[in-house]
This record gives sequence, structure tokens and C-alpha cells, in this order.
Amino acid sequence: MKRKTLGVIGGVGPLSTAYFMEVLINKTDAQIDQEHIDMIVLNHTEIPDRTAFILGRSEENPAFMMKEDAKKLEAMGADIIVTPCNTAHYFYQELQDAVTVPFINMIDETAIFLKEQGVGCVGILATNGTIQTKLFQNALQNQQIEAICPSQQNQQYVMDIIYDNVKANQPVDLQKFKAVVNELRLQGCERVILGCTELSILKREYSLNNFYVDSLEVLVEKAITACGKKVKK
Amino acid sequence: MKRKTLGVIGGVGPLSTAYFMEVLINKTDAQIDQEHIDMIVLNHTEIPDRTAFILGRSEENPAFMMKEDAKKLEAMGADIIVTPCNTAHYFYQELQDAVTVPFINMIDETAIFLKEQGVGCVGILATNGTIQTKLFQNALQNQQIEAICPSQQNQQYVMDIIYDNVKANQPVDLQKFKAVVNELRLQGCERVILGCTELSILKREYSLNNFYVDSLEVLVEKAITACGKKVKK
Repeated sequence: MKRKTLGVIGGVGPLSTAYFMEVLINKTDAQIDQEHIDMIVLNHTEIPDRTAFILGRSEENPAFMMKEDAKKLEAMGADIIVTPCNTAHYFYQELQDAVTVPFINMIDETAIFLKEQGVGCVGILATNGTIQTKLFQNALQNQQIEAICPSQQNQQYVMDIIYDNVKANQPVDLQKFKAVVNELRLQGCERVILGCTELSILKREYSLNNFYVDSLEVLVEKAITACGKKVKK
Repeated sequence: MKRKTLGVIGGVGPLSTAYFMEVLINKTDAQIDQEHIDMIVLNHTEIPDRTAFILGRSEENPAFMMKEDAKKLEAMGADIIVTPCNTAHYFYQELQDAVTVPFINMIDETAIFLKEQGVGCVGILATNGTIQTKLFQNALQNQQIEAICPSQQNQQYVMDIIYDNVKANQPVDLQKFKAVVNELRLQGCERVILGCTELSILKREYSLNNFYVDSLEVLVEKAITACGKKVKK
């Protein structure tokens, strides 16, 4: 089988791009460097803020640069394209339409993964931007999965954890985290989606169990198999 | 000032490429995504093993692919090129000659850094390939710094740590590591160079102190300033 090259639209944000690569490399069943997946990564930090545009706080549309990057990646030989940013999937269709190679949709793949696991009701932890655009809610609805978001107070806790704790490199307020998760459990959620890369980092640091479904990990596993490699057990 | 793009010949190895990016991002003085450095990263895992070729165990010359990658990066707009692999600097002159943009030499920069720190005697932890080609020894000699390498048995321990532990994603044998470092201390080394990017990862995971000079960190700081950005204090 011909080796496949994974193209990555990165820089959104820069640290989550490096984290995506790390998780992908650690989850690839490979013994030596040469068995790993070839990647071309455009860590394009200049891409305008996604949330600011989506919520109408900025007129700079990040989709323009992201589409150019997708085309560049295809021209450079990428067989499959991904972007490890949940919010950027607001522009997914435009990005897929810009290229002829497959562009993996981490939001849809997370919903499909949950469906395969037989989950009927799931909670969503994500930024206000991702919640308000209903990215996960729509994808879950397509799989007949009920989606539950935190109450207004608890959604503020999620934002505090993302911005004031993880992004600010401070310890996570686990009381707030527990309050959010308990509310979702009481409403019948069988799983909770970590739908923001800052929360993926929290999963690693606090060794969260499989009750938490990390969309970045779902994307990683899908990308590994799409490139013809095996996921390490 | 025009934004500068950093080109990275990666995949040598894959995990150290992700780690190089993480360190560069964490050390860049930036408040928002858009203030970070644009990078184009070819995580080209197919590049043949550097040490195997240098030591004559393989006829596959990694320089061919690396020169092509350097040219691709320049064509794609890289203003500065780096490769976060010490051993690959055996081919440094060929790589620099393949492009017109500057290619930062992490080995020379590490020796210059140690000179600036007033270090007179330093130990080298690196692959057999890097040690036998005297990459660091020559660069240190140019700065009038005495270089000490591990004994044959301890050099084997260093290779075990790099290949059987870090590259194989296994826990590091810290007894072996301590044996190697103690030998170098007893011979008068004021510092020890972590001259292999797999050992840079070990530095992070085991929180090694400033006795250990990580050539990857030296490269990161040089790359940040070459791109017109400031190193975070």
C-alpha cells in the first residue's frame, strides 16, 4: 500500500496543533520513525480568530485562509486533511469543497463514535462559540443522540476552566468541573464530550476515564486508520 | 516588519518534532494565537535513519530527502529553516547549500551558548552517530570548550534510553541515565548537553535542571529571535 500523507491545517490554536501531533504519534502502532505517518503541517497562526468571527465580533473571515491552506496541502501531496480545532468545523463544508481529497470532520466522527458505542444521551463541554453554533448538537441529532448543554451558570464554569485555568496555565478548579459534570449526569448523560482542545489537555493531566469522550482523540484515531495505520492498543 | 515563516524539516524523529513545536510555542512571547510564529512543518517520517547511514549500516542516504524537503520549504515561503535533530546536522552543509534562506545550525548554536555561559568542560549525551561524527566535539573545540563523551558501556546505555525507551514510547531506565551522568560529573563536566531530541523529551518528563543544556531549547530560542519574536521570560 502506498504511504499516505496527512495534511494538517494548524495554528488554530498553535499549541493544540502540537498536542494533536503528539497524540497521533503516541497512538500510532509504530516501532521506528519510518513506520509513523508522514504529515505536512501548516501551523498557520495568522488565521483570524474563529470564535470572534462566528459570534460577529470581527469581520475577518478565517475561512479564506483555511481554504487556501487546504488547497496548498492538497497540492503538496496530502491524501487526507484535518484541522484539530472544534470551532473551525463551523466552516467544514467550505473547506471540504475547496479540495478533492477527503477532509475528516472531527465533530461528525465524534457523533458517529458515540452512536457506535450505543450512547443515547450525551453532555457537551465546549466554548460558548461551539455551543452557540450548535456544531455538536446538530451532528448528534443526525445520529439520533440527545445532546445536553450545561446550564448558564455551569457554562460559565466551563469557560472559566478553559480560559482562566488551562489557557492561563493554572491548576484546574476541579470543584467547578465536578459541578458541571454532576449536573449533566443528573440529566441522564451517559457520556460527556470534551469538545475543546483545552479540555483534552485536562483529560491527560487529570487522567479522566472513558466517561469523557475527547473529540481530538476521535479525530486522531480516524486519521490513523484513514492513513492505513493501526491504532496502538 | 513582515511576518517570517519558520520551515521545519521534521519526522526525525516524529515525536521530537511535535515537542520542538510545543517548546517553541511555549517560549514565544505571545498573548493570542495570531502573535505566534507561522510554521510549515514537514513531519517526514520516511527519511531514512540518520545514525544507520552515518555508521555505514545502511546505504540509504537521508540527505537526499532532507535536501528536497529544504527546497520545498523554501518554495513554500519559509524564511528560515531548522531541523530539530542533532544527528541530521552531519548533513548540515549540504542542507544549507540546497537553499538560499538561512538554515540554523543547532550544534554550533549550542556550543556558542555554552561559551557565553563561561563553561569550560562539558559532557555529551547523544546517539552513536552524533558522537562518532564528532559533531559536538568539533563545534565545542571551535569555542575552546573541552568535550567529554561517555565510556563505551555508558554510551550503550544512552542508545538504550533513546531507542528502546523514548523512541519506543516506554518508561526511561533512570538507573542507566544516572550512571551515565555520574561518570561525566566525576570527570569534571560542568554541564551535560542533551544532544538528541529524544533526551529533550526526557528532560521535560523528569524535570531535569539547568545542569542539562538542551540543544533543542537553544535551537528554539535562536529560531524565535530569527523570526523577529521575543523569547518569553
